[in-house]
Amino acid sequence: MVVEFISVGTEILLGNIVNTNTQYLAEKCAGLGLSNYYQVSVGDNEERLSAAIAQALSRADIIMLTGGLGPTEDDLTKEVASKVLGLELKEDAHTKTRIEEYFSNRGINRTLTKNNWKQALIPEGAKVVDNHNGTAPGLIIHTKDNKHLILMPGPPNELYPMFENDIAPYLKQLEPEVIYSKTIKITGLGESFVETEIKDIIESQSNPTIAPYAKTGEVHLRITAKANSEEEAEKLILPVAKELKKRFGQNVYTTDENITLEECVINLLKKNHLTLATAESCSGGLFAGRIVNVAGASDIFSEGVITYSNEVKKDLIGVRAETLQKFGAVSRQTAQEMAIGVRKLSGAGAAISITGIAGPGGGSDEKPVGLVYIGCSINDQTDVREYRLRGNRQKIREYSVVYALDFLRNCMLKNCQ
Amino acid sequence: MVVEFISVGTEILLGNIVNTNTQYLAEKCAGLGLSNYYQVSVGDNEERLSAAIAQALSRADIIMLTGGLGPTEDDLTKEVASKVLGLELKEDAHTKTRIEEYFSNRGINRTLTKNNWKQALIPEGAKVVDNHNGTAPGLIIHTKDNKHLILMPGPPNELYPMFENDIAPYLKQLEPEVIYSKTIKITGLGESFVETEIKDIIESQSNPTIAPYAKTGEVHLRITAKANSEEEAEKLILPVAKELKKRFGQNVYTTDENITLEECVINLLKKNHLTLATAESCSGGLFAGRIVNVAGASDIFSEGVITYSNEVKKDLIGVRAETLQKFGAVSRQTAQEMAIGVRKLSGAGAAISITGIAGPGGGSDEKPVGLVYIGCSINDQTDVREYRLRGNRQKIREYSVVYALDFLRNCMLKNCQ
Repeated sequence: MVVEFISVGTEILLGNIVNTNTQYLAEKCAGLGLSNYYQVSVGDNEERLSAAIAQALSRADIIMLTGGLGPTEDDLTKEVASKVLGLELKEDAHTKTRIEEYFSNRGINRTLTKNNWKQALIPEGAKVVDNHNGTAPGLIIHTKDNKHLILMPGPPNELYPMFENDIAPYLKQLEPEVIYSKTIKITGLGESFVETEIKDIIESQSNPTIAPYAKTGEVHLRITAKANSEEEAEKLILPVAKELKKRFGQNVYTTDENITLEECVINLLKKNHLTLATAESCSGGLFAGRIVNVAGASDIFSEGVITYSNEVKKDLIGVRAETLQKFGAVSRQTAQEMAIGVRKLSGAGAAISITGIAGPGGGSDEKPVGLVYIGCSINDQTDVREYRLRGNRQKIREYSVVYALDFLRNCMLKNCQ
Repeated sequence: MVVEFISVGTEILLGNIVNTNTQYLAEKCAGLGLSNYYQVSVGDNEERLSAAIAQALSRADIIMLTGGLGPTEDDLTKEVASKVLGLELKEDAHTKTRIEEYFSNRGINRTLTKNNWKQALIPEGAKVVDNHNGTAPGLIIHTKDNKHLILMPGPPNELYPMFENDIAPYLKQLEPEVIYSKTIKITGLGESFVETEIKDIIESQSNPTIAPYAKTGEVHLRITAKANSEEEAEKLILPVAKELKKRFGQNVYTTDENITLEECVINLLKKNHLTLATAESCSGGLFAGRIVNVAGASDIFSEGVITYSNEVKKDLIGVRAETLQKFGAVSRQTAQEMAIGVRKLSGAGAAISITGIAGPGGGSDEKPVGLVYIGCSINDQTDVREYRLRGNRQKIREYSVVYALDFLRNCMLKNCQ
């Protein structure tokens, strides 16, 4: 079955809020096996909202509207939907009582206005879905043409529980098929290279399907299957996942949706009984920041230094003055001495160093903006890699961090096991 | 003029990503005086994308498409838009060279695939907008019917600079009435407090209008005026800006749209001839990372340490064992000794220390998750502030960084001038 989402609210059109409701509903509905082809946002305007609803009714089975159910004159969703469907609005005694209770439970004793009672008006034949976190009830309208129009409040704290408790069960009984997916996460390869490598699989498959997603320095391949049960879906996915893992080998860092690259690196450090120290120059603490973002990072991470000036590189982690003078702060040799230096200073088993030119200034013909050296020192083995990155300062720094994570992962895979 | 946004990508329909691009563009276009009535998301599907573009052409003057410009078979935006407009695609030599350079600058010497060259195909008559952060160029197509179709890459780090540098100026010359806005940036006060304080101004004004935007730890008040010239608009804005500055006093850190909080702090450090050192625990390098993100940070920043374990706090920056034992790593006393310690180690004039419990584990009744101490040591004066932050690990760390920036700013304003 096909679902279409319509978000109602001028604040969306003005860019005052990010439309997280639609992302939430889209993800949930995909998981329930529903297809989604269009998402529309429209303002609190009768003519345009009316057009959007009519169009959605012409191309989807289920139409989910969020927002515009409030008590103000601006809130039009229920009124316009009823008009499009030719349904009359009638006061619902149950909803009226709930609104009264809502206010009295909160100690609000003022006389309720006509606007408040507007929320108790229900299109004839609609199923009322109680709102446990606000005054606007949800509404499910099953039309004569077998379409399902579902109206839900916009505030996420009202929408999410209503969807979980009442709307999702309603949708489940409409669509018996399940959707199940698995993600293969890859580093060290570009998106177009990965796609070319699996073009044959993508083209020959319809269930499961494979979709690539690019992230900074990573490519995620999502394998999605439709089936009558989770087990059946898993059976469809397994051989494809195996083949992808075979093709990308060590570049696959996980097949677990919830594991990030930094978590993978931390797990490898733990497995190899290594602690980690960091010496960062151009990335200025971002690498350490990403490691520390993992809860429990303290098990493997004790110390990082941000050696932004030459003096600190010398005084704190013992990079030699001759090295800096002869090769410069951004050089293979300095990266090597930074990695060894911070490993010794900290007594850690592993160390990462990052030194580069993030720009916009500071580049030269010989050493252009984007030139980055990453050093990795594990026990007594130290490797350095040169990277030539492009983009603005922010991007060069972000890529440095991802490449350093991947480099550390590769060094452990190579040297430790 | 009316603008319509079309976001292209199956990942949006599946709810894999939140559509922040449209929010960004909607906010920017509203600021440029453009009206927006519909926002549409559609998948990488020829038929449906084609229908969405045709419909947008029928009801808007400017159509902005994001996404689907990548090198893969799935990426269809350019191909479909050209088909709808009846334009042929031709290889663009300039773009081809840029793509070659992009890869060779990254030290990628493999033969580029047919997919890569797809990105050099341009609809006839389109204006090419160089992408400085990726391989997909932007495209501006001015049609015979006087519509403007603008195609931009989906990744935000490519989209945002392209919009700022090339698309916004193009839009500005299309719309003769100027919209001029000024932003008052505030730290240290909550959004609802700020709103309450200016309710009278918001309600009494229609030109200029005032809109508050909440950012992590900051509130930005945007004053926007419509007028026939920039000078006229400025005249409308000036008295309002003055009143807002009066009401929020020292909490206003800038009235310059382009100045970030970290830049403001760096400028204050320079003005006071201070260099900065950092000692971070729970924030794990994020504070230094934010400082270093400003080009030219090396003028004032030489050194940071990430002292994640007690040993490093002792050995590297001289926090006393008794202090750690008696008060704990997360305490006013430890924050104080960290700030003084790293200032002395580095010889910097100013130092910031951050120690706290970011969770999810590690909290207790006495020291709950979210308890953070920030120390600020300038010359011989050291202050420590206690914060009780809410939210997940990521959020607590982000807020710590913003509050540390604000604290450093306030200490300089208080002690230095």
